[in-house]
Amino acid sequence: MTFFRSRWVDRPAHVTELDPALLPRGFRSAGVAAGIKPNGLDVAVLASDEPATVSAARFTTNARVGAPVMVSREASLDRLRAAVANSGCSNVGDGRRGYETALATQSRAAELLGLDPPSVGLASTGAIGHELPRGPVLAGVESACAQLGADADAFSRAILTSDHAPKRCALEVDLTAGIVRLAAQAKGAGMISPRFATMFCFVETDALLTAETLDLLVGVCVKRSFDRISVDGQLSTSDTVFAFANGASGTPVEPESEDELRLGEALDALLRQLALEIVSDGEGAERVGRIVVRGAAETVEPVARAVADSPLVKAALHGADPNFGRVLQAAGQALPSDEPFLVDLAIEGRQVVCAGDVVGLDDARLRELEDAVRGEEIDFELTIPGEGGETEVFFSDLSEAYAAFNSQYVKGQG
Amino acid sequence: MTFFRSRWVDRPAHVTELDPALLPRGFRSAGVAAGIKPNGLDVAVLASDEPATVSAARFTTNARVGAPVMVSREASLDRLRAAVANSGCSNVGDGRRGYETALATQSRAAELLGLDPPSVGLASTGAIGHELPRGPVLAGVESACAQLGADADAFSRAILTSDHAPKRCALEVDLTAGIVRLAAQAKGAGMISPRFATMFCFVETDALLTAETLDLLVGVCVKRSFDRISVDGQLSTSDTVFAFANGASGTPVEPESEDELRLGEALDALLRQLALEIVSDGEGAERVGRIVVRGAAETVEPVARAVADSPLVKAALHGADPNFGRVLQAAGQALPSDEPFLVDLAIEGRQVVCAGDVVGLDDARLRELEDAVRGEEIDFELTIPGEGGETEVFFSDLSEAYAAFNSQYVKGQG
Repeated sequence: MTFFRSRWVDRPAHVTELDPALLPRGFRSAGVAAGIKPNGLDVAVLASDEPATVSAARFTTNARVGAPVMVSREASLDRLRAAVANSGCSNVGDGRRGYETALATQSRAAELLGLDPPSVGLASTGAIGHELPRGPVLAGVESACAQLGADADAFSRAILTSDHAPKRCALEVDLTAGIVRLAAQAKGAGMISPRFATMFCFVETDALLTAETLDLLVGVCVKRSFDRISVDGQLSTSDTVFAFANGASGTPVEPESEDELRLGEALDALLRQLALEIVSDGEGAERVGRIVVRGAAETVEPVARAVADSPLVKAALHGADPNFGRVLQAAGQALPSDEPFLVDLAIEGRQVVCAGDVVGLDDARLRELEDAVRGEEIDFELTIPGEGGETEVFFSDLSEAYAAFNSQYVKGQG
Repeated sequence: MTFFRSRWVDRPAHVTELDPALLPRGFRSAGVAAGIKPNGLDVAVLASDEPATVSAARFTTNARVGAPVMVSREASLDRLRAAVANSGCSNVGDGRRGYETALATQSRAAELLGLDPPSVGLASTGAIGHELPRGPVLAGVESACAQLGADADAFSRAILTSDHAPKRCALEVDLTAGIVRLAAQAKGAGMISPRFATMFCFVETDALLTAETLDLLVGVCVKRSFDRISVDGQLSTSDTVFAFANGASGTPVEPESEDELRLGEALDALLRQLALEIVSDGEGAERVGRIVVRGAAETVEPVARAVADSPLVKAALHGADPNFGRVLQAAGQALPSDEPFLVDLAIEGRQVVCAGDVVGLDDARLRELEDAVRGEEIDFELTIPGEGGETEVFFSDLSEAYAAFNSQYVKGQG
């Protein structure tokens, strides 16, 4: 079974899959149980051994950000050497106390790894609005730093919350100048939304490139992956992507070179598949939809979001109901109301709406359509008036399980 | 049991409740089973006997509107004498055929009632994207016009879809110039959203007023009622409010008079309570929340919508979970990310967040808060930076039942 399971992601010809828990040369990681969760791993440390490591980072655009995001944004984002993450309790909305816990975490990790505090990034996930207990986190950091090893197995488990399984992949990328490794570990299943999601993604490569090139590649690939998914339309307070390139392979990737393109293609496929794993692991999710919208450049994005975030469209996706009426209604909500509603819609390649009106479906064609929407990945293609714009959003279905999961009251869970 | 059940609606002192199915003098209505639904009443006709009747109307702002909305928008909206509604199949997205069915319905009703076609308004609700069968609708109109009577019992049932029970009220309003009657019948339970909802509301009064005064009163009251509710954030293709004033009481209501204020207060309370009934009858709903946002005028509305439409906030409301973290996250999604997150939040009058951070709650206060959110109506008050703005949105919870109801596949239901 290949990692690249989605039909919406092409595996580049020049990549080879490795053991998914491997790390590129010169990276080490660990994950430990520090008692923040009732059970399981909850503190994770990732570090690069190479002093010349460069990095890039992206964070949530929510106005309410967690203390780890505040501290990380002030760090040396192009010169990070390590990252510390915890799950089980998100350090958000706890004021001065939470901020000082984040600073203390950064300092302790830096001290143990022989680094300056600004070269350590932080990430935190779990219920928000509660005290993250400082003692257990610092003890967890100490324990993790003492156990750093060459794979990301425990690391990739320690960052999870409501995820069903680790989300990770390691690749060998065949460049013209040599072979490099590229790996990533991600988490996320709920509060996943517009403008990227309650998710973490840690990316490592031993390719030798500048911080500017890494930042450019990460920026483009995040826009095409985590930026294009929605489980529930809810932008998290703590979304974080950290990418590290430590040059340990000795294989250079120059700006605007063939190898930059090859590494970029590998990173693009990797992050898109990880983003799709987040959607398909959405809380209670059983199916993934993709809405593609083509038309006026300024309107494609709100229309795609309106469809992807409609609970009626999502519930229909869950029920394998080819409910084109709800797609029209959701699209109409985001389209200008003073213009003719001239849209076309195809579901799984079958045209069902033409110029705003439903195409008559005879019984045989309706049955065919019903069969077509029973799969795990359902494609919706919408054409709206205007030109120059095209976008896509991947979204999960809305099930009873999502509602049940998110309405179970956990005492004191703010 | 009074009609004005919500603590968020004050019953004006100068109104008296009548049998809720009554109509004001000079109005007649009927509801019949025309076979559009598998079972039950599905065609409804309302008419005023008074030639001097004035009217006002409001429609959805969705870009995809149904043929009945298209036809109604071209009618004599300040001089309507009658309305025809059907449930069971919404005449939306069926092109020329649907448009002609709407025109034929309007003409047939006008002919039977002795009116011009432009004095008949139309409304249609049910699954969208299917043919509304013309023959049964026209037969239903004929049958209903032959059975018009002085109450709105069958009428108020024939407009329902997934509603649990009729939503209606009849009031006597004590004006300084005399007593008038005011009644309304509404429907709606899903696809209820921003900028008013998959809902119909028919309002009748025998007060004597101008079309301008009626339009003004309806405009203000719709903004404070149907415009402020959300079941699922989904703006329908067919929302319609028709209001009629036929003067049959002989009691005049002059512009800017004490009596205009009194009638306005009665209409306001009536429509707000009906709007709350739509929310509390939301598909699968068990609880109603109110989010009040105060602060910068341009930001209060998107913040209130972000909270009211968050599936995480709605699921927490369902589970009686005082989950302030999710309210902060949703609010932060709609606030500018380059400004300090200085918000205050109170739940059921208890402050839980101050200047963006959670107020420490000891066990006793947390228990008190948990008890406070077990009721049927839960109040959230949020203060954001800035001044001059205040808004409120009423919203239903998100339950397994909503997800289950909306994912049951009905063959051919587009």
